[in-house]
This record gives sequence, structure tokens and C-alpha cells, in this order.
Amino acid sequence: MTPPGAKNNARTPPSMHMLCHQAPVIPVLTITDLAHAVPLAEALVAGGLPVLEVTLRTPAALQAISLMARVPGVTIGAGTVLNPNNAREAHRAGATFAVSPGATHPLIDCCEDLGLPLLPGAASATEIMQLIDRGFDLMKFFPAAATGGAAALQSFGGPLSQVHFCPTGGISQDSAKDYLALPNVACVGGSWVAPTKMVQDERWGEIRQLAHLARQLENGRHRANGTDRHKSDSK
Amino acid sequence: MTPPGAKNNARTPPSMHMLCHQAPVIPVLTITDLAHAVPLAEALVAGGLPVLEVTLRTPAALQAISLMARVPGVTIGAGTVLNPNNAREAHRAGATFAVSPGATHPLIDCCEDLGLPLLPGAASATEIMQLIDRGFDLMKFFPAAATGGAAALQSFGGPLSQVHFCPTGGISQDSAKDYLALPNVACVGGSWVAPTKMVQDERWGEIRQLAHLARQLENGRHRANGTDRHKSDSK
Amino acid sequence: MTPPGAKNNARTPPSMHMLCHQAPVIPVLTITDLAHAVPLAEALVAGGLPVLEVTLRTPAALQAISLMARVPGVTIGAGTVLNPNNAREAHRAGATFAVSPGATHPLIDCCEDLGLPLLPGAASATEIMQLIDRGFDLMKFFPAAATGGAAALQSFGGPLSQVHFCPTGGISQDSAKDYLALPNVACVGGSWVAPTKMVQDERWGEIRQLAHLARQLENGRHRANGTDRHKSDSK
Repeated sequence: MTPPGAKNNARTPPSMHMLCHQAPVIPVLTITDLAHAVPLAEALVAGGLPVLEVTLRTPAALQAISLMARVPGVTIGAGTVLNPNNAREAHRAGATFAVSPGATHPLIDCCEDLGLPLLPGAASATEIMQLIDRGFDLMKFFPAAATGGAAALQSFGGPLSQVHFCPTGGISQDSAKDYLALPNVACVGGSWVAPTKMVQDERWGEIRQLAHLARQLENGRHRANGTDRHKSDSK
Repeated sequence: MTPPGAKNNARTPPSMHMLCHQAPVIPVLTITDLAHAVPLAEALVAGGLPVLEVTLRTPAALQAISLMARVPGVTIGAGTVLNPNNAREAHRAGATFAVSPGATHPLIDCCEDLGLPLLPGAASATEIMQLIDRGFDLMKFFPAAATGGAAALQSFGGPLSQVHFCPTGGISQDSAKDYLALPNVACVGGSWVAPTKMVQDERWGEIRQLAHLARQLENGRHRANGTDRHKSDSK
Repeated sequence: MTPPGAKNNARTPPSMHMLCHQAPVIPVLTITDLAHAVPLAEALVAGGLPVLEVTLRTPAALQAISLMARVPGVTIGAGTVLNPNNAREAHRAGATFAVSPGATHPLIDCCEDLGLPLLPGAASATEIMQLIDRGFDLMKFFPAAATGGAAALQSFGGPLSQVHFCPTGGISQDSAKDYLALPNVACVGGSWVAPTKMVQDERWGEIRQLAHLARQLENGRHRANGTDRHKSDSK
């Protein structure tokens, strides 16, 4: 018998797995003022969160990605990548990976052509199976809190245990624990580490503190998904 | 950068946006007795709800649509339009628009061929993105209460803010407020304004009262989605 | 008017309907020790649950299906059938039907070619409509508890009343009642009748008792979905 888990994972490149295992939380950032981009990235990486997602929701987003990508120790992905055009612009701006709330075939095709690792979103067993068929075994689960939360991911872990998730949407420092305790959660996405008001007021020290707290979530992470697993996986 | 919101909206015609902004609630009606069709439509429009959805769930539905479409000041859409055949019958009966709980490509193609504005349903980011790719920026969200409710729509408003929704399913006069306060909710669909028993007993005055109450929800509507916005949009 | 319910149901064969109506609960079993397969099946059928789903999640699964299929009075389906390869292996092992948490076109095509009745999963109106278009009117609803529960199925029963469901995922002896009371629920899937620890300890008498209790859920089942309906349906 060929176990269902023995799928090729051509389109979830090893680098994507490594990125999702570097820290328990990927901050989801919406940059309105370009001047905030570099100090924000510096605060987050100093706090222990080196992988960041910058959403393509503002005119400043692409330039912010370009600037932040040069901050030492930081890896920048583009979020809210909804279509091939978004993917090409994110790639040109220097994004290391792309994140999408859902997935469409044209978007997947384009990222594949660009060699841009994609973290595609899925929210149902059918959507997960369709992404498995396209080679993915690492997916965003969005909107996490509103679509069943940790209970839904636990259920998916039964028949679809080969897939790991980055739940995003409505997650807080508190609720992150429930997700990270699951064996099929690689990391969580969250905006709570960079509150809009705190960014506007340029309180980088406090953001660094929030990032530091988020990093501590490592301790409650399921052992299969911690740094050790990633190290052995990438052998 | 091309913002994700700058999609063409060929298949959500302006008329569909206008219809969804005419009143905060679109009554969802299932007509079993053809004799109820006209007085029911008259009661609802008198109460302030001029846009009605008649579901294709009963043998009387198509005739009811034909009759109600002639009531002055009323716009009638067909609901439960599941396939091209339903769409063609609704169109022939005189429906001004079609509503579907979900969406399939054959249904979208058919409505496009007919020139019948479609309000297609979506319940996940992937489904929303696929409808964006087909040109829609106004969608039904069904079943609203059971699939994450207002929290889910708030989450979709992050990466998919260009899309507006008409949540339907399990919504009441009370819970409607939470939906209508969101910037990405155009209106809500609901059957509470025409309870089955009240229709059977032909208590049109009471239904008119319920419609009037529902119309008052206008006050709690997000400013971006009120009558003013629709007026400026349709310039 | 062609009612939406008048679809052909070529791919939900009558046998699948009959199987789902034989008992209120289909036990979902994950067999790790092949020695447990036959006594477990015997205990469940003795308790009154003759239709069993064995998930393809363990190396022992396919052999377990072959062994259990020979137990008198038992019908064995394969669960966690994610792709054509799984379907072919399940068919070869002697599974009478296949269950999938979601659905993809290649999987449906393969089951059709094999003549293997499929119970495909759906979790949204769009997914349900796509399966209706492929001829299905009986579907798994997964993960049931985390994706809106009985309230979601009740909502689907409005515009999509021609479809019956087998909700699975997070259902217990207690919550099963809420699902089975709905007119569009054929049966529920559940693992509570064969708890892992009880199976490991080979406490077959207790499992038989749990199956017997589950069988009693027949009493709270919606009348349209009981044994009588199935008998008259299969005329």
C-alpha cells in the first residue's frame, strides 16, 4: 500500500518548511509608512522572530519588502498574494516567499514558474486535497479562529496528517498555544506582535518585547514541529 | 504595484451593487401558495424592503416571481439558483437577478450568457479568490451564522477587502447589526421578516412591521455601505 | 420548472444510500494491529452496527479490510481515500465503498471507473454544488463539529435539501442526536464506539455495548431517514 502521506512535495520546497519552523510565530505586517519598515523588522528579529510576512495591502508594501529584505537575519515574505500579478511584483521586490489566504491554479502556476515558494491557504478537506494533488504539504489555514480554530486542525490531522499548517487570522498570544500544541501546526501567523498603534508611535522596544514573548511560545510547541525536527528534516 | 483591489468587475454589474445597497436586508422568501405572492411583496416594499429573493424551492416559485415582479417598486431575484437550468427558468420568469448558495463555473457562464446578474455564494478564501478571478466583487456568504459569522467576514476583510458580502443563513434582526457594522457587508439576507406561520395566516400588517424594523437597521450600517455610498458609486 | 432536486444521481448508487441507512452510526476505525480486525468487526456487528469504515492510515489497513470483509453480516468501506491510488488499493482489498474527507475530480473519476461507490466529503455550498453537478446526492460532511456542526447542515438543508449527509468528525454519542434529528442527515460517522484504549485491551464486550448504545440512536433519527424510508426508496 502506498500511504497517503507518501506524496511528492515538489511545490512545497524544503526552504518553505524550514522558514515555518524557524520560529513559532510569523508576524503579519501591513506597512503604511515606509519609514517604519526597517526599524520594525529590526525590532522583530531582535525579539526572536526572523521570518516576516508583509501584506500587499498598501502602496508602500513592495518598497517595504525591498528595504526589509536587506535587514540582517530577516527573511521577508509577501502576503495577500492573490493573483499572478501580485506574485510577480512580490518576486521582483525581493520577497523570499509568498503567502495567499486561499489558492487558485493560476497563482500556483505563476509561483512555480517564478521559483517563488508559496504558502497557499486552505480551509476545507477538499481544498487541502486539491493542494496535496498539486504537491503541497504545508498550507496556511485562514481564517483560523473563525473557521473552526484548533479543533478543525485537529480534525484535519486525522485523515490528512501529512499536511502541516500555519494557522492565521484572529490568533493571539494566548490562543497561539492551542494551535502550536498540535502535531500538524508548523507555526502561526499573527499581527498581535506589531499592533497598529504601537507601530505608528514607533515604540520599537515594546514591539521587540512582544516578539520576545511570542518567541517563548516555542516551549509549548509540539515536539515534532520544533527546531530539532526541522534540523533533522533538512538533512 | 497593481493593488489586489483593482480587479475588473465585469460580472458583478453595477446594478447588483445598487440592489444590495438599496436596503440593509434582502428578504429570502419561499412561496408555497401563489395567492400569497403579491400581498407579501406589497407588505415588504411598504415596510421599506424593495429588493426580494424568491427561492426556487417550491413548484409555485417561478410563477410567484412573475407575479411579484409586477408589484410597483419591487425588484425580484431568484434564489436557490443551483445550475444553468435554474438560471434560465428564473430569467424567463422575469427575475432581475439570481442568487446561489455557492458557485460553479457552468452556472456563472450561463448567467453571463443570459445577462442575468448573479450573486454567487462563497465561504472560504479560496472560493472568494476564484470568484474574484471570474470578475466578482460582491458575493453571498452562506451559511453565515454557522460558518464563522461576522468574525469570518471581518477576517476576510483583511486580505480580501475589495470584496463585499451579503451574509445569509441563520441571521436575525438582532444579529444583523453585527454584520451590517462591517465595512465589507453590503446587506444581509434573511427570512425572519416573513415567518412561515405569519405568511400562512396572511398577517400582512405584521410582516410590514417586521420589514419596517429591518429597514431601521440602516442606522447601524457601516457608513461606507449606506445609501450615500451607493449614490456616489453609481455616478 | 425543473426542481433543483431532480438531478440524476448516477454516482451515488442506490447501494450507497442503503448502506448509510442501515444503521444510524458508521464506526470509523483505524486498525494498527491486524489481530484486532476480525474480533472488532464481530463486536460492532453484534452490537448492531453492520457498516464499518476502515481508514487507510496504517500499514495494516488494507489487510484488515480484506479480513473484515469476510465477517458475516458486515460491510466494509475504506476511509481516508485521498487519491486514485488509494481507491484502487481499497477496491483490490475488497472494500465495498470508499469514503473521502473531501473530493477531487481524479478521485471521483477513478471510483467511477472502478465501480466503487464513493462517499465524497463536502464542507461548503460550492463544494456541495460541484458534487451535485457530478451526480452525488449523498456526501460526508467533515469536520462536522468544527465546521458549523448541525447548524451548518440545517442551513444547507434550505437551498440544498436534495443532498443527504453523513457528518463525521468530533461527533459523540451525545451530539449524534442533534445531527440524526435533521431530515438531511442519513447517518453519522464516529470513532467513539471503538476507543483506541479499549481496542488495544481487546475489550470486545464493552465495544459491543457501545455499538448497542449507538444503535439505539435509531429512535431519535428523523423519520425520513430511518429504515422504512430506505426500504421504500429501494423499491
